[in-house]
Amino acid sequence: MCEQSLNDYITEQCALIDAALDRLLPAEDESPETIHKAMRYSIFAGGKRMRPVLCLAAAEACGGLAVDALVPACAVEMMHTYSLIHDDLPAMDNDDLRRGKPTSHKAFGEGVAILAGDALLTEAFAVIAQVDDTERYTVRDYVRELAATGGSTMLIGGQILDLEGEHKQLSEPEVRTVYEGKTAALLTTALRFGGMSANATESQLEALTDFGYNLGLAFQVIDDILDLTASTEKLGKTAGKDVNSQKSTCPALIGLDGARSEAKCRTQAALDALMIFPEERRARLVELANYLLNREY
Amino acid sequence: MCEQSLNDYITEQCALIDAALDRLLPAEDESPETIHKAMRYSIFAGGKRMRPVLCLAAAEACGGLAVDALVPACAVEMMHTYSLIHDDLPAMDNDDLRRGKPTSHKAFGEGVAILAGDALLTEAFAVIAQVDDTERYTVRDYVRELAATGGSTMLIGGQILDLEGEHKQLSEPEVRTVYEGKTAALLTTALRFGGMSANATESQLEALTDFGYNLGLAFQVIDDILDLTASTEKLGKTAGKDVNSQKSTCPALIGLDGARSEAKCRTQAALDALMIFPEERRARLVELANYLLNREY
Repeated sequence: MCEQSLNDYITEQCALIDAALDRLLPAEDESPETIHKAMRYSIFAGGKRMRPVLCLAAAEACGGLAVDALVPACAVEMMHTYSLIHDDLPAMDNDDLRRGKPTSHKAFGEGVAILAGDALLTEAFAVIAQVDDTERYTVRDYVRELAATGGSTMLIGGQILDLEGEHKQLSEPEVRTVYEGKTAALLTTALRFGGMSANATESQLEALTDFGYNLGLAFQVIDDILDLTASTEKLGKTAGKDVNSQKSTCPALIGLDGARSEAKCRTQAALDALMIFPEERRARLVELANYLLNREY
Repeated sequence: MCEQSLNDYITEQCALIDAALDRLLPAEDESPETIHKAMRYSIFAGGKRMRPVLCLAAAEACGGLAVDALVPACAVEMMHTYSLIHDDLPAMDNDDLRRGKPTSHKAFGEGVAILAGDALLTEAFAVIAQVDDTERYTVRDYVRELAATGGSTMLIGGQILDLEGEHKQLSEPEVRTVYEGKTAALLTTALRFGGMSANATESQLEALTDFGYNLGLAFQVIDDILDLTASTEKLGKTAGKDVNSQKSTCPALIGLDGARSEAKCRTQAALDALMIFPEERRARLVELANYLLNREY
């Protein structure tokens, strides 16, 4: 068990992460100001920081220090934020609200929003190039994995399939492929990067991969449930979008109850993967997984 | 002097580069097919391959082999192509033609074009992660430089300033800053990567940097002259765009004759920077610089 409450732990880790992001991003008044303002606007728009928090907790689970995982955690958060900016564009999901604020193209115009996404993606690689090598992992491993997870068969591939799946019925395996690419891949990388920063053994890294895959699927199922059941105000983004664009989602395919039980099942599989870690070391990841399962926004 | 004609040399190097690009990019029938088709459509749309050819020639100037520079040369070409796809979007320069073919968003729609650009940018880093370390340079140096040159103060910064400069009069130093970011930065990186793959000395790398900077400025001045003087058919992209969007360019600021003399002057400065290389070693770069100065499209 952890002495510090989960809320306090998350608050503390988020403060570390925000300070690191602030340090790693170009200053708002650096020229050209527009692009740096737009990059910071989306990064500091009040996201949950789920991926970097998981990255830090994974480092601790492997016996490392959270502070040593900050650089890869920030690279992952930058890649995540770029993908949100581009996904929200009119040519994609066409969303006006994100994290309760106007989306980047609403605030800055489409041209700047596209470039702000490009710049955060590029900056993610500038940041990952600053990672320290450990005995087992070098900067080359990090760059290769970040590029693969963000690439055309995973993060971008998921978004393409999602776009193509609008107004057409996908099968369950096809929906799972979308979820894997859109969500599970980068979430898994966040966990693996935390492990790598702590010089994790191969079996620890495998456990984190298994945990991340299942947690990522659970997370996206819950996201799609909330899109159907929660209010726009609570979500901080437009609710009911999936129905309106006739997206094939897990709850659309198997119903709300089926989707809820799928999310529970995946979370359990995620928790099972953690059993190779000593109890006190896995406690935070267990808490975080349960917290994500029970979230309401 | 070089025994092989420049045209034969360029043809031979382009064949090497195209084969490497084909090997490094995901296959067209790999899932999701749409994104891989779109990535390959723009990469193989008949570009001049100026940057990768310069990369290979720089490796040879430093006593290395062209073949050892192929990986970074392809990474640079992918980054260049991504920037063209995004620059052509309706929210940016809104161009329908590129290299004589419909632009990516005309061929695939805006959503896919944005993602194809994202995917090529990400793939550039996947490719640069495959570079061989030399005695003086490691993969970390390459990633750091590629991210910096593609980032918010250079490639993307140039495009932002260019966007903001439409319908408003920029000063000569401001126009130079746009040229540096939009063109000179990535061209310089192409040359430096060639040098790095040949384990160049510090002074060789400085000479290539100086050469690239001046050649890049000359190249962009000529581009803007051709936009005014050449036909759409010859250019393979819409001519007269800069006047229509009231862009501040070098010829708009100092006239066609002034711009022509600026391009010559910059080319001479570029050639001067090569003097540290033995004559037979610098001959190709000299020929390429003169070729770029005298081009008509």
